[in-house]
Amino acid sequence: MAAIQTKLLSICLLRRKVLQTGLRLASTVPSSSFKYEDLEVTLTNTPQPKPDDNNLIFGHHFSDHMLTVDWTAQTGWSKPVIHPVEEMRIHPAAKVLHYAVELFEGVKAYRCEDGKVRVFRPMENMKRMRSTAERSALPDFDGDELCKCIKKLISIDSAWVPRSDRCSLYIRPTFIGTEPTLGVVKSNAAKLFVLIGPVGPYYPTGFKPVTLLADPQYVRAWPGGCGAYKMGANYAPTIQIQDTAVKEEGCQQVLWLYGEDHMMTEVGTMNLFVYLINEKGEEELVTPPLNGLILPGVTRKSLLELAREWNEFKVSERDIKMKEFVKALNERRIKEVFGAGTACLVSPVEGIKYQGQHLVIPTMETAVLTNRFNNILMDIQYGRTPHRWMEPVDEEGQRMQEVSRV
Amino acid sequence: MAAIQTKLLSICLLRRKVLQTGLRLASTVPSSSFKYEDLEVTLTNTPQPKPDDNNLIFGHHFSDHMLTVDWTAQTGWSKPVIHPVEEMRIHPAAKVLHYAVELFEGVKAYRCEDGKVRVFRPMENMKRMRSTAERSALPDFDGDELCKCIKKLISIDSAWVPRSDRCSLYIRPTFIGTEPTLGVVKSNAAKLFVLIGPVGPYYPTGFKPVTLLADPQYVRAWPGGCGAYKMGANYAPTIQIQDTAVKEEGCQQVLWLYGEDHMMTEVGTMNLFVYLINEKGEEELVTPPLNGLILPGVTRKSLLELAREWNEFKVSERDIKMKEFVKALNERRIKEVFGAGTACLVSPVEGIKYQGQHLVIPTMETAVLTNRFNNILMDIQYGRTPHRWMEPVDEEGQRMQEVSRV
Repeated sequence: MAAIQTKLLSICLLRRKVLQTGLRLASTVPSSSFKYEDLEVTLTNTPQPKPDDNNLIFGHHFSDHMLTVDWTAQTGWSKPVIHPVEEMRIHPAAKVLHYAVELFEGVKAYRCEDGKVRVFRPMENMKRMRSTAERSALPDFDGDELCKCIKKLISIDSAWVPRSDRCSLYIRPTFIGTEPTLGVVKSNAAKLFVLIGPVGPYYPTGFKPVTLLADPQYVRAWPGGCGAYKMGANYAPTIQIQDTAVKEEGCQQVLWLYGEDHMMTEVGTMNLFVYLINEKGEEELVTPPLNGLILPGVTRKSLLELAREWNEFKVSERDIKMKEFVKALNERRIKEVFGAGTACLVSPVEGIKYQGQHLVIPTMETAVLTNRFNNILMDIQYGRTPHRWMEPVDEEGQRMQEVSRV
Repeated sequence: MAAIQTKLLSICLLRRKVLQTGLRLASTVPSSSFKYEDLEVTLTNTPQPKPDDNNLIFGHHFSDHMLTVDWTAQTGWSKPVIHPVEEMRIHPAAKVLHYAVELFEGVKAYRCEDGKVRVFRPMENMKRMRSTAERSALPDFDGDELCKCIKKLISIDSAWVPRSDRCSLYIRPTFIGTEPTLGVVKSNAAKLFVLIGPVGPYYPTGFKPVTLLADPQYVRAWPGGCGAYKMGANYAPTIQIQDTAVKEEGCQQVLWLYGEDHMMTEVGTMNLFVYLINEKGEEELVTPPLNGLILPGVTRKSLLELAREWNEFKVSERDIKMKEFVKALNERRIKEVFGAGTACLVSPVEGIKYQGQHLVIPTMETAVLTNRFNNILMDIQYGRTPHRWMEPVDEEGQRMQEVSRV
C-alpha cells in the first residue's frame, strides 16, 4: 500500500510539472494566432424562435450563429468567421472521427441585473484550452483573441441570453483535428468552433441534491494519462457507467474513485468538495488536489479563492479516501458534500452509493456552506455584486459596422 | 509492490470478465440490426484515378464508394447504403465531436494469387466492434450482416484492391455518436460507416525494423479503463507522445509500459511479441496477456494460434517486465522482438529506448521467427496457402442487379 502511494505521488508530482508547463505556456503569447481584427461576420436571414426559459434542457438549444476558425499546417490560421449555425462538412477519414482528436471548454455568460451581459472568468478557460490543445497535438492560439471573438459572437446573439436568474448562456468552444487521413499521428488540419445557447440547470433536479454512484471497479483517469485535460477522450469511456448509474442505480452521476484506498477524485462533470469536522476537530473544506487525475475546474478554483478570502475555516486541497469519509460520516462529522462545475454551478450531494451501502449525506440539513457558495456565486454572476471575475460583453461597441446577410 | 500487483491482478480479472461478457454478447444475435438484403447502392459517375501501388501512403487513399448505416433511438437502424465517398454533414454539437463517442476497426482484403479478393478473418473484427460498441453505449448490430455489406462494398470497388503482394486493401469500419446535443450521456443517434482504400506498408520503413520509445511516465491504459476496446479515446492521448518519439527520439512508435515494474503492454498500433530463451533455458514466445490493458488484436490471435499449432516452443500470454527483458537481453537470451497488427502485419523491432539507454535488439541477426510468421501470414493472405482464415469476396455474385448512378 505504501508502494502504490509512493508511486502515485511521484507520478502525480510529475504530472503536476507537466500541467504547470501547460499553464506556463498558456500565459505566453503563441508565435502565431488568428486575430479578432480579422473577424468576418455573416448574419442569418432566418433567425430562429427562442425557447421558453422555463423549459430549457441543457445543451439542446443553440443560438443563431457560431464562430469558426480553420487551421492547416501549411497555411496556418485562417480568418475567424461568425456565421449561421449549420451542419459541418467533415471528411469521413477526419482524425476527430477515428482517434478522438478533440477537446472542448465550458464557459457561461449571464444577463446581469443591470441588463448587461457578462462572462464568468473566460480567460481561465482560454488558458486551459491552450494547455489541452498542446496535450492533444493541436495548434496553439492567442486566448485573448479567441475571447474577443467569443464576446463578439455573444453580442450578436445577445437576445439569446436568458433574462432569468435560473438560466444563463452556455458557451462551448470546441477544437477538432480534421485532417482526412487514417494513421495515428498529429493532425495537419484543425477546426476551432464555438457554439452558444441558453441553458437551465444541468441536472433535471435543479438545485435539488443529487446521489452519486461510487464504484471502484471503474477508473476515470490514471497517473500518466490525461485526466487533467479537457479532451473528449476523457468522456466517452464514462458514458456506459453513467448510464448504469442513472438507469440501474437511481443516481444522477458517478463519483470516480482511484487506487487501492478508493480516493475520491471528481465527478466528470464537476469537482467534489467535502465540508467536515476533521479528526483534529477542525472545520475543514476539502477538495482533491490537482494531481493529474482531476480536471482543474474554474468553479473549483473560484470556490477555493472565496473560502481562502473568508479565512473562516481550514481549506485543503488534499486526498480524501472513502475510508476516512465513511468514518467521518459515521461519527457525524460530515457536514456537507457538493459538486462544483460550470454546467452545474454548485450541486449539493445527498447520497453516495458505495460497495452496496447507500451513504446518506446530511448536506441539506442546513446546507449552510453549499447555499452560501451558491448565493455568492449567483450574486457575482448575475451582477448583484460587482466583481473582477465578470467580463463585460459590449453589446453595442463590439458590433461591427459592416456585416453581410445570407 | 506486492500490493499494486495484487490490486492490478484483481482488477485485471474483473476486466477479463467484462471483456468476456462483451465477446459473449458478440456471439449472440442482437435483437435488431440492419440487414444486407436491404442494402441500397448508388454508384459514382466520376470514378477517381487509382494511385500507383508503389507510392501508397497508409490511410491517404480511399476508393470511390463507402458504406453508411444510420441509427436513431426512435426509429432504429436505417437501410445500409453504399454511395460515393463524400464529406459527411455533422452537426457541430454532435457527441462524437465533444465526448469522443466513436470507435473503429481495421481489416484487410488481399488480391490473391488466383486473382480473387479475400478478406482476412473479418468476423473477428465484427465481434470486437460489437464489444466496443457496447462499452461505448452505441447500439448493437448483426456482425454477419455488416460483414456482408462490407464484402459488397469491396466487390463494387474491387478494382481498388492492389495487384501487388506488398499492398492490400485496408477496410476501416467506424461508428460514431451523432446526437446533436451537449451533455455527457448516451447518444440517441449514431452513424456506422466503412471506408476502404489501397495501402502499402504502415511504416515508411516497410519490413525494415523499427525502434520503440518506452517511457514509463506515459501510460496508455489502466485497470478499470477501456484499453481493451478499440475506442477513439484510446488514441488521442498517445499522439503527442508518439510525435515526440518520432521527432525527438528518432523512434517509429511508443512501447507503452504499465505499473511500477514497467510491464510491457502494447504499441498502440500493434501488439508486442518477445521470442527468448527464458530463465529455465526454454525457448519461449511471450506476448502480454489480455488483462484489460491490451487490445485483443486479430493478428496477435493469429500468431498465437499458428505457434500453438506448430508446438515447437513454449507459447505464453504472460506479463513481461522491463527488468526481466533487460536482464535477458544482457544475457543474450533475447532472440527476436516484433509487433503484430492489421496495419503493420509483422514488424521487427531492432531497438527500444528506455530510461536513457538504447537497447539494441538482435531481431534482424536471423529474424527466423519474425520472417517465418511474416511469410506464413503473407502466404495465407495472398492465397498461396489456402486457409480457413480467408473469406472470399464474390466479385460477380455479390453485385446487385439494379443500381442507380449519380
